[in-house]
Parts: sequence; structure tokens; C-alpha cells
Amino acid sequence: MTRIGLTLGDPCGIGPELWIKTLLLLRKEPLLLAGLRLYGDAGVLDRTATSLGRSVEWRTLREQLQVVSVTALTAQDVPAGQPSPISGIAQLSYLQAAISDAVVGRLDGLCTGPIHKASAKAAGLSFPGHTELLAAHLLAPQRSVVMMLAGPSLRVALCTIHIALAQVPTALSVEGICQTLVTTALALHQDFADPAPHLWVLGLNPHAGESGHFGNEEAQLIAPAISEALAHPALRDLSGLRITGPQVPDVAFRHALYPPANQSRPSAVIAMYHDQGLIPIKLIDFDHTVNVTLGLKVVRTSPDHGTAHDIAGQGIARPDSLHAALRMCIEHTAQRAR
Amino acid sequence: MTRIGLTLGDPCGIGPELWIKTLLLLRKEPLLLAGLRLYGDAGVLDRTATSLGRSVEWRTLREQLQVVSVTALTAQDVPAGQPSPISGIAQLSYLQAAISDAVVGRLDGLCTGPIHKASAKAAGLSFPGHTELLAAHLLAPQRSVVMMLAGPSLRVALCTIHIALAQVPTALSVEGICQTLVTTALALHQDFADPAPHLWVLGLNPHAGESGHFGNEEAQLIAPAISEALAHPALRDLSGLRITGPQVPDVAFRHALYPPANQSRPSAVIAMYHDQGLIPIKLIDFDHTVNVTLGLKVVRTSPDHGTAHDIAGQGIARPDSLHAALRMCIEHTAQRAR
Repeated sequence: MTRIGLTLGDPCGIGPELWIKTLLLLRKEPLLLAGLRLYGDAGVLDRTATSLGRSVEWRTLREQLQVVSVTALTAQDVPAGQPSPISGIAQLSYLQAAISDAVVGRLDGLCTGPIHKASAKAAGLSFPGHTELLAAHLLAPQRSVVMMLAGPSLRVALCTIHIALAQVPTALSVEGICQTLVTTALALHQDFADPAPHLWVLGLNPHAGESGHFGNEEAQLIAPAISEALAHPALRDLSGLRITGPQVPDVAFRHALYPPANQSRPSAVIAMYHDQGLIPIKLIDFDHTVNVTLGLKVVRTSPDHGTAHDIAGQGIARPDSLHAALRMCIEHTAQRAR
Repeated sequence: MTRIGLTLGDPCGIGPELWIKTLLLLRKEPLLLAGLRLYGDAGVLDRTATSLGRSVEWRTLREQLQVVSVTALTAQDVPAGQPSPISGIAQLSYLQAAISDAVVGRLDGLCTGPIHKASAKAAGLSFPGHTELLAAHLLAPQRSVVMMLAGPSLRVALCTIHIALAQVPTALSVEGICQTLVTTALALHQDFADPAPHLWVLGLNPHAGESGHFGNEEAQLIAPAISEALAHPALRDLSGLRITGPQVPDVAFRHALYPPANQSRPSAVIAMYHDQGLIPIKLIDFDHTVNVTLGLKVVRTSPDHGTAHDIAGQGIARPDSLHAALRMCIEHTAQRAR
């Protein structure tokens, strides 16, 4: 049985509500529940279940998994929709407890609830978000950390993430793009169980630079990175691997979803910057997209949305993305254990 | 009756085939046909109609519109799929003849077939494409030229077009963005007959910079440009105008297509760079997207695809986008004449 750590996320956000809704969806699957360990606060969870009118079912369910009360807060301490220094530090304590257990090998996967970035920063987090913090503690040997958005119809992996658009061209390098390709190809094989991954690598510029007429990063960075990745020793055993590009970005997404005759869908599209990948996937797979961190010693997934303070405590938040994230975490940890 | 100039485009590409297919779709509408003037070559068109097995219908149709033989080429001179110096110069001659007639006021609109950029450049065109050439000759007073992609579910206008991504941040200015907003708002009112345009202006950076954490063009350029446009004298009479932004790019497109409760769709989304706007619209409205040039003295539309040499001469090219472009050109010229 694999062991998966769940983190509550910001206790003032929609995290507690989404976890209760998601775990209730698993209540007929005791074997799955037994492998889950929720880092958060029993007091916050119990009160949230009561406010959702689900306290009876929650009390039964709670016995089937492990709930770790990292803090001793109640729902009154962290009122819904009102982030504070308390909620800011509490959300970090859940996350750091889970990371500690992952580092010492007590967890095979992490599925993390959304944290509130401003209060995390105020509480002392020096990283921009989850992904960078996890990379600092759990990076696998010879990998880089890669953010992937995985939806039912499209997977997108990003070469750069949370930086200004003006910094994207200088942040890209042959080595960095190559590392993203290697990490993504290995993850597709090992976690997504794809025997012959096919990566489509986008250009950076409109029309992929149109033979250098506007921008030459395609020729100077992206094409050499593809060649380097195809010859990389870590991918030697991946005999079915294909890497195609640099492709014209606006055409590639169209073809990834509606492949022309005799072509198949890519295993993943590799985007050069955040919005190049996130605009299309949010348009297509919005409610079911999972954020997957590739290149870590453990599996890590999370929903593709934030803490949504504006609707927290109202009982109307949709658990689809967190549910999809947990299912994917379960599948991938099982896949790695095979 | 309004007068619309049609240009054949690259005679080696799919232009001749698409024009014949599109015009045949209008054969029951003699009043519309009578206002059309096709700048190209009767020899090329006749041979194309024959190869499509439509020569009888084409011969009848040809009498209902004006076909101007700018050159005296035949299909043998410009074989399908094989661009040459002849096709390169011929496509420019069609376009320049139509522009001349537009400049002297003999045309109210232009609907242009696709040209082949490399052979246009080799033939002596110093502009990157149609849009810039048209702007040099036909710019309306106090407007800038704006490229808009208009599909059935989404319209996107672009602040920058065919430049390297690295040049986008420096190419943006308060004045330039403001001019794009003014030109777009006026065109939505005058051509698209929208009494109260609502523009959604995107940020440049991921998460629209997240309060300046990654990039500050939102605060320094985009927000001031919105304020300036809202106070612009040219928009004084547009009392229902709304301009909202800078918006988070990946969320905005999602909401533009699937508006949250109590919100309506925007009249147009204003993108800061080519792929920010073209990736989503090609994903959503591909076959029916029309390229519209705003800010000109005449209406100008064109299909949202290229010369497609790979399928030219096979009879399989789809006329949907050119047909949509011609319909929109007819509607907009009629709207301006009201």
C-alpha cells in the first residue's frame, strides 16, 4: 500500500471544504482511504463538516484515514475568507510537516491543498510557491523540477513559470530546456505509464520565428535542446521516445486537440512560458486540470486553482480539480510502486 | 450598393480554388455579386474551375461579378504548390491594383486572399505582410492599424503583432496601447454595430504580474493606457463603452467564453502579443475566424490561414474562413454606408 500525504492548505480558504467533499467521494473505497494521511487540523475539519451538514458521514470517514492535527486551531481561529497571520503560518506548518515525512521516506506522494501566497510570504516563506519549496527538499537526482498541467485532453509542461514575460527569453537556455524535456519524458514513462512518450516542443516566437524573421531562439536554443535531449543518457532506454519541434505555438495547440489525418495526439506539449501553456489548458480542461510537479522523489499533485477566499465558507466550491488531483496522485504512486 | 475588392492572393496557393468555391456559395445572391470586383487573372481562375469540375457554373457566375485580369497568366505559368518569382510578383500586382482603387475611393472594402510572404519579400515587398502595407496607404485619420481576429465566439485585438517575443515588452507603450483601445472601440461601434462595446484588456505577465511580483507593465503601461482611452475625445460619444483590465490572461479567456454568473461576454479581448491572442482563438474558432484590419479608410478582412502550398491544386481546401471573411466584409461595408 502506498502512503500519500494530503495537506489542508489555507484553513481560511476553500481547502477544508474541498477535502471533506473529496474524501467523502472516496468513502466506499476503504483500501484507498487507509493509505491517506491528512496534515491539518481536526478542529477546523470537524467544524467545516458540520457547516456543510455532513458531520455524521465525516465522523465515520475520519476513522478510515489518518488526520494529523498539526495545529490546535478551531474554525473560530481561522474564519472562512479572512486570511490572517494565524492562517498564514498554519498553512505552512501543515505543508512542512508533510514535506518532512516525505524527506525521511514515510510518504510516497503528496496531494496539496491551495495555500494563500501573500500570507505565506508574510509568514516567512521565501519561495514563490509550493513547487519551488518542494524542489528545494525533494528533487530527485539528475532531474529538474517541472510544472505540468494535466487535463483529460491536454498535458502541458512549462520551461519557465512565475517570472515576468520580459525575463522569459533570457531565462531560457539549451541546458534548461533539455532538462525539462528529460524530466518530462521520464515522468511520462514512469508516472503516466506511457511506453512511448511523444513531446511537442513549442517555439518561443510568433510563427516559431518564421525562419528567424522575428526571433531566433528557435534555432539557437530550442532545436539544440531537442537534439541534446534525444541523445541524453537518461533517456537511452526510452526507445519509443519522440520529440518534435520547435512548433508554431498557435497551430500546435489546435493540432494537439484536433490532430490532422495520420497524426496522433502528443503525450505532452512543452511550453516556453506560463501563459503560452496555461491559456489553452484553462480554456479546454478547466475544472479537471491537475497541477503535477515532475522531477521529485515523491509524486506530487495539486488542484489547478487557488484559495478562493471570495467563496470560502459558502459550501459552493467544486471539488472536481482536487478530486482529480488525488486520483492522479494515487495512480502515480501505485505506478511507481510496481 | 457597396463596392468590394477581392484579391486572388498567391496564384500557386489555395487562393484561386477558395475564391471559386466561395463565390459559388453566393451564386443565388446576384445583388451581392454585382458589388464584387476580383483582382487576379481570368486564365488562372478558369483553369482552376475546370480542375475542380465546376467550369460550367463558374462561367455563368463570372458574368455576375467583375473579374479584373491584372496579369495575363495561365495556370501553367503558376503551377499549384510551386511558388516562383512569377507568382511572387503576380500576387503583389493584384493586391496593389486593389489598394490603388481603394485609395482613390473606388472601393469601400477589401477582402484579400492569402499571399506567400517569402515570395512577396523576394518580389520586393518591404512590409512584413498585408496589414502593414495597407496601413501605409489607407490609414484613417487619428487611428492606428489594429489586427483583430474575429470568430463566432471570441474577438481578439492585438497590441503587437509580428515581432520577437523578446521585443514585446519594449514595443508596448501607454500611447500605443491607448491607440489600440481607441481604434478597437470605434471599430466595434462603427463596423460591428455594437452600441456599447466592452473591452477586456489583458495583462502582459503571468497572473497579470501578481501585484508587481513578476513584472510591472500592468501598473506602468496598461492601467494608464486604459485610463487615457476612457478619457479620449474620440470616444466621447460612446457612452456605453467599458474597458476592464488589466486582467489575468489565462483566467480572462476562460471567462470570456464561459462567463461567471452575472457577467456577460466581452465585445473583444485586447491581447498584448500575437500568441496570447492567437493560441486561444485558433483553439476555439479555428475554421471560422476572420482576420480584420481595424483603423483603415476601407473595411478589410481576410481568412485566418496561409497559402497552404502543401494542399494547393488538390481540390480539398476548405473555403469556410474566406467565406466568413467575405460575409463580414459585406456586412461591415453595408454598416458603414448606413
